[in-house]
Amino acid sequence: MNEFLNLFIQSALQHCEAALPPSVAIDEDCSEDLPAELDHFCRAFEYALQAGGKRIRPLLAYAAATAVTGSTNPAQSVTSAACALELIHTYSLIHDDLPAMDNDDLRRGKPSLHKAYDEATAILVGDGLQARAFELLADAPGLSAAQRISMVKVLAQAAGPAGMVGGQFIDIQATDSDMTLEQLKAMHSLKTGALIRASLALGGIAAGGNEQQLTALDEYGSHIGLAFQVVDDILDVEGDTATLGKTRGKDGDANKPTYVKLLGLEGAKAEAQRLLASALDALESFGESADLLRDLARYIVERDR
Amino acid sequence: MNEFLNLFIQSALQHCEAALPPSVAIDEDCSEDLPAELDHFCRAFEYALQAGGKRIRPLLAYAAATAVTGSTNPAQSVTSAACALELIHTYSLIHDDLPAMDNDDLRRGKPSLHKAYDEATAILVGDGLQARAFELLADAPGLSAAQRISMVKVLAQAAGPAGMVGGQFIDIQATDSDMTLEQLKAMHSLKTGALIRASLALGGIAAGGNEQQLTALDEYGSHIGLAFQVVDDILDVEGDTATLGKTRGKDGDANKPTYVKLLGLEGAKAEAQRLLASALDALESFGESADLLRDLARYIVERDR
Repeated sequence: MNEFLNLFIQSALQHCEAALPPSVAIDEDCSEDLPAELDHFCRAFEYALQAGGKRIRPLLAYAAATAVTGSTNPAQSVTSAACALELIHTYSLIHDDLPAMDNDDLRRGKPSLHKAYDEATAILVGDGLQARAFELLADAPGLSAAQRISMVKVLAQAAGPAGMVGGQFIDIQATDSDMTLEQLKAMHSLKTGALIRASLALGGIAAGGNEQQLTALDEYGSHIGLAFQVVDDILDVEGDTATLGKTRGKDGDANKPTYVKLLGLEGAKAEAQRLLASALDALESFGESADLLRDLARYIVERDR
Repeated sequence: MNEFLNLFIQSALQHCEAALPPSVAIDEDCSEDLPAELDHFCRAFEYALQAGGKRIRPLLAYAAATAVTGSTNPAQSVTSAACALELIHTYSLIHDDLPAMDNDDLRRGKPSLHKAYDEATAILVGDGLQARAFELLADAPGLSAAQRISMVKVLAQAAGPAGMVGGQFIDIQATDSDMTLEQLKAMHSLKTGALIRASLALGGIAAGGNEQQLTALDEYGSHIGLAFQVVDDILDVEGDTATLGKTRGKDGDANKPTYVKLLGLEGAKAEAQRLLASALDALESFGESADLLRDLARYIVERDR
């Protein structure tokens, strides 16, 4: 990874993590009456949010804003968008890990939330994170109400049944089933693609991007979203559990459809490179301001975890 | 129940149920590739939304709008608010019924969603309903972006960790524990009170209410929200399972704190009447336009299910 990208990522993550709600503001009257239970709930939120992760979605939002404005110093409004995206992503991981879903005990190298706490807490923390994401967007400073409502609409569609949740539903139904490549792409364009596209849209909207810029960002996002999943499937075969921070080979074990199964390992790698090239093509109308997005695209395709 | 209120309820419910998303719009490209799974998902949403219920929150939103405008013919914007509230309420019931939470097999007289389908579907339908609620508000027709973002903020706070989800967390922790009356009130002001207050706020905002009107509606809502829960506890002791559509005496069985346990049956009934009187007092600044809210308050306290 080049040094400039590295510095950008560190700076963006500092902005994002400083703003991620570390605890849950509860009405003062209540916390006086019920300190023990609420304290426990706050700690579960902290556990979920401080587990780290690659923070790809916030980074894409920051980089999209930089592409629009030319500045690598993000406005506070972009940070609200970046955090909202991370809250939605974190909630989806918490619910995906539940025994009734993917039943995964390990997440980001630590026990999943339902193992560290319990299932009921994991369900409620996920539910609460989703609500907080929309609250963050509604409160985003320095933006017009029209920009904020536009972000709410994009995020709600991307997170909902016609986006992430719909893709996850198809995924859990797909165990042991045959899927064509087109079906696999359609599933991932919902399950992970929708929120990645929303990351670029929210960064672009928060930075005041025009329609042409938002369209280019969306096209970049659709390619990079699929590339992200292709690389995930490759890493699931090639990666190391310690580096990945989650159970390696799990998708293969559960007889889940993957790009590697459908295209072979070399075919999947070629597909990732093809998608990377398409993502870079989509950025043609931007000048140097989109270099961070270009670097992030390469990072997403060449990462080892 | 008086005839006018009855007519209003029927009319309001028709507006609301006609607008509740009966199915989940999915991108056409995907539904061509993956019809079977998505069709199954759509049917689960329909099952959840068509199970009925009292629709108290939409009714409160419609009646709040009537108090502000004087018209019983609701604007489309009020219907968007009413439906968003019902989607949040429905998702919360679906997640509350899960085995890891209240583990209830019966809801509104029919098998709970996780019994009719499965747990993973119930988790995802709940998640999807929450996202759709915010999408509905973002799309509410005939309102300024400022009004819509104001509704998003109110609903997100009411549904989140400082509202409904926080109250639910305290509730699941509270099994077998001693709770004072103040703690019980604080819990319910979050668990059910926050969304009921939001119902009044959203109806008021969608109807263009001013600050003084919104404050009066909120005070009414805080009293009627607690009354609603007190009556629920009374019905849990006195009601009939067939009429309630859920398992009677369940809260008592699980050693949950209730108003009846803390106040006795007669004490709880007196408390409900006291809260009803306070709710009616809060409406003093409104004229006849608030008669529906007054009737709904009486209906909530005098209902038998």
